[in-house]
Amino acid sequence: MREVFHQSLEDLQSRLVEIADLVTVSIDKATRAFAQSDVSLAEEVIADDSLIDEKAVALDEQAIEILARQQPVARDLRIVVFALRVSASLERMGDMSEHIAQLARLRFPERAIPKGLKSTFTKMGEQDVEIARTLSELLRTQDLRLADHIRNADDDVDELHARVFEKVLSDSWKGEAEATVDATLASRYHERFADHAVAIAKKVVYLATGDWAVEEEDIPLAVEAHAATLED
Amino acid sequence: MREVFHQSLEDLQSRLVEIADLVTVSIDKATRAFAQSDVSLAEEVIADDSLIDEKAVALDEQAIEILARQQPVARDLRIVVFALRVSASLERMGDMSEHIAQLARLRFPERAIPKGLKSTFTKMGEQDVEIARTLSELLRTQDLRLADHIRNADDDVDELHARVFEKVLSDSWKGEAEATVDATLASRYHERFADHAVAIAKKVVYLATGDWAVEEEDIPLAVEAHAATLED
Repeated sequence: MREVFHQSLEDLQSRLVEIADLVTVSIDKATRAFAQSDVSLAEEVIADDSLIDEKAVALDEQAIEILARQQPVARDLRIVVFALRVSASLERMGDMSEHIAQLARLRFPERAIPKGLKSTFTKMGEQDVEIARTLSELLRTQDLRLADHIRNADDDVDELHARVFEKVLSDSWKGEAEATVDATLASRYHERFADHAVAIAKKVVYLATGDWAVEEEDIPLAVEAHAATLED
Repeated sequence: MREVFHQSLEDLQSRLVEIADLVTVSIDKATRAFAQSDVSLAEEVIADDSLIDEKAVALDEQAIEILARQQPVARDLRIVVFALRVSASLERMGDMSEHIAQLARLRFPERAIPKGLKSTFTKMGEQDVEIARTLSELLRTQDLRLADHIRNADDDVDELHARVFEKVLSDSWKGEAEATVDATLASRYHERFADHAVAIAKKVVYLATGDWAVEEEDIPLAVEAHAATLED
């Protein structure tokens, strides 16, 4: 029974990693579609989002079945609840990729990235892709140092997000209202994408360190402490 | 044991209603703060959001305890998982109220609502408040007709959201970039607030009709069918 249960948990983990990998492909394509006005790439992202949604629903169903059949307690129970929550966040990350792709498609054949913001959005997209890739690795390896890496990359995204608004609100901004709207929404989607990854990374840390009920808004110092232990 | 379990489920339900009530107060204050540039009201919303967050965490902990101690199966298990998911969405609705209040505070003593959009945002705020109030009632009574009411109000919000962009992108728009950014973000927050409520309402319907695993993006026709049954 114990053996079966551990097999079930490993299966949940594999499913989370699989969804995270799909999200990584999705954000990578979405940022390229957005930067290069590649409408067929944008269409792919939009079409593939339903696959992410389906896989998240399937994972949830499996988690509920594990709860019903194997009635886990203590840490095992936390792991199953964790999987339910993480699948919801990954699904939202997929939605953010889709929204970025939709902006690219909406503006085609014009370029979706407003003038003067190309390098900012390119960097933001690169950070989001890096975050998704690292998140997938974190879910696969449980190496908590990766959580710090995600948090640092999220700080970069926040800084780039602020830079978009600085630019848009500066005297040098020559964009029409349409460009302002696009910049605002695209920046918000990129930022939310990274936020969801940070929320998941924190949950991984809480699960590992046991401090689950801690205020989620706080930055968990436990990450550094735990990483230091690993490095010792 | 059965008695104890039903007491636990009722307690979960009461907690959901309590959080939904707090969210209703929060969006009501936030929309007034936004319309009237009332910075002290905005501060209240921002301060009170941590209470919503705490109550959501407490509910989650109770749900996990129920899973561990009482090991529910079948529909009882679905109810507990439902509570976990709904608390996450309610918490996000509180965040949207907070974001609207933050915009009001950021622009103070100027008016946060951009010129030419006062009536649109007033209606949007009213719809969001109505949606929150109805959602709380739905969670309290399980009267599925209320889910339709929420969906209709969400359609109105979507239409108002589209109207904001029409206005901002029209020749008559005289707003500076700042007003365009504010309109874009505020409209997005109002729309997301309503979306979360619709997602919760759908979950209530699925729980009642048993069709849980259905594609969440689809509009559940079951609502009308079920409501018709109730009216018969």
